Amino acid sequence: MFDPMEFEIDEPEKVVYVVGIGPGDVYYLTQEAQNVLEHADAICGYKLYLDLIEQEFPCEEYYSTGMTKEIDRCRWALEKADTGRRVVMVCSGDAGVYGMASPVLELAQDYPDVAVEVVPGLTAALSGGAVLGAPLAHDFCVISLSDRLTPWEVIEKRLACAAQGDFCVALYNPSSKGRPDYLQKAVRILRANGKADDTVCGLVRNIGREGQSARVLTLAELENTPVDMFTTVYIGNSNTRALSGRMVTPRGYRK
Amino acid sequence: MFDPMEFEIDEPEKVVYVVGIGPGDVYYLTQEAQNVLEHADAICGYKLYLDLIEQEFPCEEYYSTGMTKEIDRCRWALEKADTGRRVVMVCSGDAGVYGMASPVLELAQDYPDVAVEVVPGLTAALSGGAVLGAPLAHDFCVISLSDRLTPWEVIEKRLACAAQGDFCVALYNPSSKGRPDYLQKAVRILRANGKADDTVCGLVRNIGREGQSARVLTLAELENTPVDMFTTVYIGNSNTRALSGRMVTPRGYRK
Ligand SMILES: C[S@@+](CC[C@H](N)C(=O)[O-])C[C@H]1O[C@@H](n2cnc3c(N)ncnc32)[C@H](O)[C@@H]1O
Ligand SMILES: C[S@@+](CC[C@H](N)C(=O)[O-])C[C@H]1O[C@@H](n2cnc3c(N)ncnc32)[C@H](O)[C@@H]1O
Repeated sequence: MFDPMEFEIDEPEKVVYVVGIGPGDVYYLTQEAQNVLEHADAICGYKLYLDLIEQEFPCEEYYSTGMTKEIDRCRWALEKADTGRRVVMVCSGDAGVYGMASPVLELAQDYPDVAVEVVPGLTAALSGGAVLGAPLAHDFCVISLSDRLTPWEVIEKRLACAAQGDFCVALYNPSSKGRPDYLQKAVRILRANGKADDTVCGLVRNIGREGQSARVLTLAELENTPVDMFTTVYIGNSNTRALSGRMVTPRGYRK
Repeated sequence: MFDPMEFEIDEPEKVVYVVGIGPGDVYYLTQEAQNVLEHADAICGYKLYLDLIEQEFPCEEYYSTGMTKEIDRCRWALEKADTGRRVVMVCSGDAGVYGMASPVLELAQDYPDVAVEVVPGLTAALSGGAVLGAPLAHDFCVISLSDRLTPWEVIEKRLACAAQGDFCVALYNPSSKGRPDYLQKAVRILRANGKADDTVCGLVRNIGREGQSARVLTLAELENTPVDMFTTVYIGNSNTRALSGRMVTPRGYRK
């Protein structure tokens, strides 16, 4: 049972907060995330997100590394917290969803005195979904097309299962310079496993950032639409409709 | 392209905002949701959520109906907006995920002068996930066990597909008075389709509310654990681990 009073007393002295900052602007932070950031001694994260945060949340120390040095950043955060500083690690979107919460929790096994608090944030699937309308209003899957840490066969299998179950789908990391054709490959797997060509789909690019743009299109059209890594892709279920330019999945389900 | 200036000018006079307020306390609202609520002429929603909101966001008019009169509430909001009032409809969690965004967008087809703006919020899967650690750090499905609007066969099929794809799963509406054994049935389907008995699972009850509680357990244990409708249930993938009492799914995926 959660008792706020007891929580105060028990609050550990050494903490890393892993905070999801939502899609971009500080406008999408929760009150909880704002409070944690306001009381930080040190804030670390990927450079792009630190730039968004720095102006609004002044603090003693900032630490950033490139996209590929994530594990170094986790270690830095845990070491710093172990010296008694309140450390916040920021992630885009939600802290858990393809975010830093899980590597920090794993590495924290080596720092028994440091507690890890996860502060959730708006994941891209939800913030972009609101731009489109209500694409994920019924059962849905979130799948990343990045094969940097996951074998492509696992991704293929999941796409097939998502299509067979007639789930709504949100695709993260739909493309990158090294793999420009992954979205096309994914769409072919979805079609081969039961998603109809006229399934209503959507794209949202730069959610909550300058230059935000969105588009509603069919699955057949999506197959030949180039996208980049700043885009989240939505595939409807068999009941999803395009209504006045919005993508809307009914809450009820009729065959 | 999104241009904030242009947006100001084009902002329609008649709007229903459908706002996700997160799991409970106003502490979990985004800044955007707070701003929209502060400027509302009328706020409507399910009684329980209005009670949470009323103290912090005083406004001219409140309107609530019971859980089963949701469509009446949507019509009320659209009618009211059509008279030129700024109407906010609040939902728990995210506005889209099993929320009111989609019925409002559907009914809005009858009100061509009224625009619908969806303001996303922290859905239970994410807010409860943060309590457990990082259960949804890799590809995941969100499935509702409520068969009020969805045939049970569709739910069964989706559970089977989610297990076959080795997805992490978040289950909403895991139980209710009328269907106390649905979680048990769901767990049996997951096991029959490849989820191992020792799969790491989690439960979070009353996320962000008084009496919040959480538990990490195995899938075999989950099968015989009674839950209620104020609970979100998490099932890990084959790589999910229990680490110091937290539920942690690695970002990378190894067979
Ligand atoms: C490594 S994942 C990070 C996910 C993040 N933790 C979250 O919960 O949103 C990166 C992918 O998320 C999606 N994404 C994140 N932020 C986005 C934004 N502002 N606009 C569009 N897509 C975004 C894109 O698909 C991108 O390739
Ligand atoms: C009709 S759904 C509403 C979902 C909501 N729109 C969202 O995005 O979280 C209701 C289900 O969401 C989950 N849920 C919502 N709020 C919760 C909370 N505060 N604690 C635990 N579970 C919650 C439970 O599984 C509940 O049965």
